[in-house]
Amino acid sequence: MSKRVIVLGGDGFCGWPTALHLSEQGMEVAILDNFVRRQYDFELGCESATPIASLATRLDAYRERSGKEIKAYVANMLDAERLKAILQDFGPDAVVHFAEQRAAPYSMIDRRHAVYTQRNNVLGTLNLIYAIQDVAPDCHLIKLGTMGEYGTPNIDIEEGWLNVEHNGRKDRVLYPKSPGSWYHLSKVHDSANLEFACRIYGLRVTDLNQGVVYGATTPEIKVAQDERLVNRLDYDGTFGTALNRFCVQAVLDIPLTVYGTGKQTRAFINIVDTVRCIRIAVDNPAKRGEFRVFNQFTEQWSVMALAELVRKVGRERFGREVHIAQLENPRIEKEEHYYNAKNTELPALGLDPYLLTEDVVHSIMRHCLLYKTRCDPQVVKTGVKWKETDNAALSGFVARRGS
Amino acid sequence: MSKRVIVLGGDGFCGWPTALHLSEQGMEVAILDNFVRRQYDFELGCESATPIASLATRLDAYRERSGKEIKAYVANMLDAERLKAILQDFGPDAVVHFAEQRAAPYSMIDRRHAVYTQRNNVLGTLNLIYAIQDVAPDCHLIKLGTMGEYGTPNIDIEEGWLNVEHNGRKDRVLYPKSPGSWYHLSKVHDSANLEFACRIYGLRVTDLNQGVVYGATTPEIKVAQDERLVNRLDYDGTFGTALNRFCVQAVLDIPLTVYGTGKQTRAFINIVDTVRCIRIAVDNPAKRGEFRVFNQFTEQWSVMALAELVRKVGRERFGREVHIAQLENPRIEKEEHYYNAKNTELPALGLDPYLLTEDVVHSIMRHCLLYKTRCDPQVVKTGVKWKETDNAALSGFVARRGS
Repeated sequence: MSKRVIVLGGDGFCGWPTALHLSEQGMEVAILDNFVRRQYDFELGCESATPIASLATRLDAYRERSGKEIKAYVANMLDAERLKAILQDFGPDAVVHFAEQRAAPYSMIDRRHAVYTQRNNVLGTLNLIYAIQDVAPDCHLIKLGTMGEYGTPNIDIEEGWLNVEHNGRKDRVLYPKSPGSWYHLSKVHDSANLEFACRIYGLRVTDLNQGVVYGATTPEIKVAQDERLVNRLDYDGTFGTALNRFCVQAVLDIPLTVYGTGKQTRAFINIVDTVRCIRIAVDNPAKRGEFRVFNQFTEQWSVMALAELVRKVGRERFGREVHIAQLENPRIEKEEHYYNAKNTELPALGLDPYLLTEDVVHSIMRHCLLYKTRCDPQVVKTGVKWKETDNAALSGFVARRGS
Repeated sequence: MSKRVIVLGGDGFCGWPTALHLSEQGMEVAILDNFVRRQYDFELGCESATPIASLATRLDAYRERSGKEIKAYVANMLDAERLKAILQDFGPDAVVHFAEQRAAPYSMIDRRHAVYTQRNNVLGTLNLIYAIQDVAPDCHLIKLGTMGEYGTPNIDIEEGWLNVEHNGRKDRVLYPKSPGSWYHLSKVHDSANLEFACRIYGLRVTDLNQGVVYGATTPEIKVAQDERLVNRLDYDGTFGTALNRFCVQAVLDIPLTVYGTGKQTRAFINIVDTVRCIRIAVDNPAKRGEFRVFNQFTEQWSVMALAELVRKVGRERFGREVHIAQLENPRIEKEEHYYNAKNTELPALGLDPYLLTEDVVHSIMRHCLLYKTRCDPQVVKTGVKWKETDNAALSGFVARRGS
């Protein structure tokens, strides 16, 4: 029997390609989403570089192309009774949980956005824990965390747990974390709650601490055949992340925005590998009571090295002169630091990493060029400052265009 | 000039004696409370062993006895605008934050109580962080955490931070935690949020990881002179904690309820020392940007050793035969474990511990005897089971008396 998997947040940047990939792998897939990610775009006055279709249209297109059905549930995870009813209705073998507010800058806009992020993420996941224990206690919860939970410690980053020796005694403890935003903190809180749920209820949990995701598309998204399947592509200052934003900036002929020295080193993964990692997790469930953590990234890059890679590809493959602008860093973070994160668990289960090369950057930039006329250089700039308790231009009192 | 201190949750078991103590020490004191602790009693069908007066009556009585004024603000910390306005109005030098749902069993009743606890505690504290940064950024936040955040690790428990060496490299990290309930987790989340707030805003924070508080009264609560000042005394199965509950059980001539083997070792502190520790923290503020953690307890006891102490005092001083009932443990916790927690910071600042002796137990039991006729042996029993997602008899669907 094929596995039944529900993808929470299945309309989003990672969720949509994951749902398609798992369905193409022969699994029975459902999506739960409340479309709040699309709402953030309205709020911030920006939109995906790509013309994303509604979920209903996406699923129609997928059915027409593949002959396969993906079921959709429209629901907010803060509605605990509905969430439980949906799990009861679908009867999942695995729940893949992407349904969280996922942008650090968004969480730092002001108090309302900080509280929104922690309430939505932490309480939504708490509702999910109870729903699983009540109606699907044997199902495997695959939860998306982030490498940003760890911060930039001066010791090697292990996968979720750390063996410590202190005053001659030993223990295995949750890896100590030093996250850099209210968003990252919400994921730390989730992880702590989930580890406890494994201890008391015997849930099966895989917590995937994912690196920064780049790339625009996956093999299952056959844009050339049907643009209704296209994935979202964020390049704005709030939701756009390093490499994808650089590629859009390059094709718009505006400078790549690097914060501070750009020596900040982070863990990265291509969206192609994101969906593979989820499949590997589904295929290899955690044991009852096990809180298992994988670091889901394939390589480490400094932000400046990424910018320089984009500059090189721009010049050599597209004949464009790409400039790099070093902006005052709006975040509070170390710009020079040790960084050595382990990521051996997923390769041990079969992940063959799809690494970042000039060819990969070339293909992302070609994708961006297709949608260049849809992009607005203004929205790249809007930087949330970490030290401000009210980033007024983004807090919803002032529409972006009028500011 | 005397310091201005606002005690959040100043109507509660720790908050009320703290407010009195700080006022008696010559500080300008205000209380903020929303009386939800009194609401829990209505919900659970129990009440304080002592006849606590309303806050208005308490403050009238205190003014009559001392000539001193304590200001009261009735507010819910989830109302962020009001919280900010209150800090603006009072202009505190220090904020003492007791205003959290504080019972592990209450948080484990069912999903609603779990979500309530984490929402109330985590989001209330998040609102407080913003209020302080916006209107009183130099003020010192003294936040009550709990020793229960640490769990029972196999290594020594340090005060908040741990120096680790791993693969030949070193770092100082937040002490890794393994809390035992949704309530304890809410305090872990608070600590992580506060440490971040210190990093980005430069707040001054002292996080007091308090042990189990026992004792009924403090020198400032002159019950013999004016019963309107009496502190609350919880002995029910949800809010009553080990030693105080045992003393009430002993005077009611019902068995002391020990969970499992009773070999669980915990950190304890007398309420007399609680208020002293808060004063020490107020007198010695954290530096700007410092997230300082003190373990606020004076000694370690196993639960069984406490029960045996109460039995001994009952027999020798009151001529009562006290029985001990070992109940099946409703919690998920280790019953035999290593436990060695550090508590040198507060003594280094001047705390001279008031330790637990037979005389101290004798005086608590005498206090309980005064109110014996107010106590209901039924309410001691109601034990929340950690493994149940719905402890129906306590979840509000069934009133206790009818179950």
